Amino acid sequence: MAKSSPVSPLAPKQVPVLPPIKGVTLATAEAGIKYKGRTDVMAMIFDKPAAVAGVFTKSKCPSAPVDLCRAHLPKGRAKILVVNSGNANAFTGKKGAAATKLTAEIAAKAANCDFDEVYLSSTGVIGEPLDATKFEGHIEKMVQNASPDAWLQSAQAIMTTDTFAKVATQQVEIDGKTYTVNGMAKGAGMIAPDMATMLAYIVTDAPVSAAVLQNYLTQSTETTFNAVTVDGDTSTSDTLLAFATGPADYTNPEDKKLVAFKSAFHDVLHNLAMQIIRDGEGIRKVMRIEVEGATSKAAAKKIAMSIANSPLVKTAVAGEDANWGRIVMAVGKAGEPADRDRLQIRFGDIVVARDGEREEGYSEEACAAYMKNDEIVIGVDIGLGSERFTAWGCDLTKEYVEINGDYRS
Amino acid sequence: MAKSSPVSPLAPKQVPVLPPIKGVTLATAEAGIKYKGRTDVMAMIFDKPAAVAGVFTKSKCPSAPVDLCRAHLPKGRAKILVVNSGNANAFTGKKGAAATKLTAEIAAKAANCDFDEVYLSSTGVIGEPLDATKFEGHIEKMVQNASPDAWLQSAQAIMTTDTFAKVATQQVEIDGKTYTVNGMAKGAGMIAPDMATMLAYIVTDAPVSAAVLQNYLTQSTETTFNAVTVDGDTSTSDTLLAFATGPADYTNPEDKKLVAFKSAFHDVLHNLAMQIIRDGEGIRKVMRIEVEGATSKAAAKKIAMSIANSPLVKTAVAGEDANWGRIVMAVGKAGEPADRDRLQIRFGDIVVARDGEREEGYSEEACAAYMKNDEIVIGVDIGLGSERFTAWGCDLTKEYVEINGDYRS
Repeated sequence: MAKSSPVSPLAPKQVPVLPPIKGVTLATAEAGIKYKGRTDVMAMIFDKPAAVAGVFTKSKCPSAPVDLCRAHLPKGRAKILVVNSGNANAFTGKKGAAATKLTAEIAAKAANCDFDEVYLSSTGVIGEPLDATKFEGHIEKMVQNASPDAWLQSAQAIMTTDTFAKVATQQVEIDGKTYTVNGMAKGAGMIAPDMATMLAYIVTDAPVSAAVLQNYLTQSTETTFNAVTVDGDTSTSDTLLAFATGPADYTNPEDKKLVAFKSAFHDVLHNLAMQIIRDGEGIRKVMRIEVEGATSKAAAKKIAMSIANSPLVKTAVAGEDANWGRIVMAVGKAGEPADRDRLQIRFGDIVVARDGEREEGYSEEACAAYMKNDEIVIGVDIGLGSERFTAWGCDLTKEYVEINGDYRS
Repeated sequence: MAKSSPVSPLAPKQVPVLPPIKGVTLATAEAGIKYKGRTDVMAMIFDKPAAVAGVFTKSKCPSAPVDLCRAHLPKGRAKILVVNSGNANAFTGKKGAAATKLTAEIAAKAANCDFDEVYLSSTGVIGEPLDATKFEGHIEKMVQNASPDAWLQSAQAIMTTDTFAKVATQQVEIDGKTYTVNGMAKGAGMIAPDMATMLAYIVTDAPVSAAVLQNYLTQSTETTFNAVTVDGDTSTSDTLLAFATGPADYTNPEDKKLVAFKSAFHDVLHNLAMQIIRDGEGIRKVMRIEVEGATSKAAAKKIAMSIANSPLVKTAVAGEDANWGRIVMAVGKAGEPADRDRLQIRFGDIVVARDGEREEGYSEEACAAYMKNDEIVIGVDIGLGSERFTAWGCDLTKEYVEINGDYRS
């Protein structure tokens, strides 16, 4: 485990209090999976089976809990979610599958539900066998003692190298009634989600069906969790689950009455994704990459991600150097349609290059001052089309190297 | 420009003396492009126009000199090569094209040749206009004073953040006669060539045609320059040129009499590519990634590059941590066919994971000792096919972050 790091300088100044959501309670425990003296398991229990939707890592080597969630998702009903930190139960072979099976059996018994109404996630070191017997007793006690208020504690229990707990909430009206969307996430490293990022859980009491939930989840993921990258490395464990505890009154994602809900749901995902980037390992600056004028959305995204993941762009931002030549490089290496002589590049509102060359008379001084900000906007206009994509990344600092040089020790 | 760094600890212990090659002379000059008190231009002059072959960056935003070389290559004859360091003349728009035109005109006049027998390269900062009038006088003097022995000096003149000059040589027989292959290169950062890497020049007196040269160059590039990566960032300026000064007696790449020559030619490319990786910015360790058992060569390469470019693998190697879980992650994110439960992973000869889980009873101690080496072999057997690829990368250290945080200042 990495040495404990000070809280990210970009952590939110205020942590929202998440209101209770009808039909769900939460609890945490110290199971001693790896850490000492802190909670490392959280459980979320639904009074009645909730509608569930999910997106998972596209890794060809997913973790055992991801396999289990995928297998259970077609049924679309969740009674209990159990998440542990300290061990990812990834690349653990038959032992890994046996560990998720035992954990899910313990959880199903404790929550008095079917095996395929259990959802599991694990996060931490890869390759170490997970001793699931450590959950015995704990899960039963958590079910008994669960409270509707333990949102922040639950978010804390699933942290690994995160320096702060990540929660978000929104309230929204559907047809005159108020509903809540709560969410929590963990992030930090191995963040370049290719479908979801690391672990995130969203709960709502809005009366929507699993199909509606899945539709909104898939759509919003593309521009939230799938648009952030800390290090270009995609985890084996990425899991994003959404639960709806109410009746499935609304079953059509296009229903006009759901417009505000869809937007609130998106806001919670966006908020959590931003918190993940703001807690990127060793981060000092957020990069917001706004690509426009691309020939397709896919091209815009590939170019934005090429910039966000470029070590040379990331180190330049860390060094507060407005080195736009490296942005040209990153656009060029993305391999998508681009025309050197139409490219426009800006830092914030300061255009530094236009039509394939340095902008005459832009102020290096103003640019240097801009680079001192916590959040750096890198704007690129490809000049060939009208498609756009915004991605978020972070700088690459010595602290990132330090944190990841001895993660296992 | 970066602060001058101490010589890479992985620099070759001995620098070979390159023998003269019939038909070519070299010279260097201090044109004051950017640096003070060091040479920053080199010229290579051919007595008679040499056969020439080349491969260039696949960047969508190539530099002006790359445009010029590409335009001249169809003619296949080179009388003079001029290379400067300190300014890449990339993303310099019409000014950039005008600068290459002026430089080539000066060079053509000095070497008494056609405009399209001139080859140019520039390396250094991107986006700064290059003042080509600085070459005036210098190129003419270089042509007059050129010597057959100035190989090492020429390699020194094209360095940027390189900590040592990169040269290599081989001698080989064709049909009972001895010929030489000399080469030089520069590297350091922005190294993830997608066709060639940065700048490299090969010269031989072997009597081969431009077609033979191009054939061997294209083949060898794939497993040498295109198989190394320092930071996954592809330059706008990558240029690899090969020149043959003799008559075009051999015109068939499949000619059996050329087998030894082809091999010697490959060895020079391989040697230079290895020197480039051993001078990766901030490097302390070379990673040699051996992927086998893949379903296709392209898949093997993509997986090898995914491992070589993973910041989490690179920082783990920097920290001497045998964190094979991150290798699983990198295999998984490559997106190529892989089966978690067939994967085998080794560090050197120490198998740490087999059939999807940790190898029983491997010695963590032996593994920790192995990680202290300068060169770390990471072996991955995908277990699905018989295709293989070997890539070379380097660790990610705090020095890399430092070097690249203030390159322009």
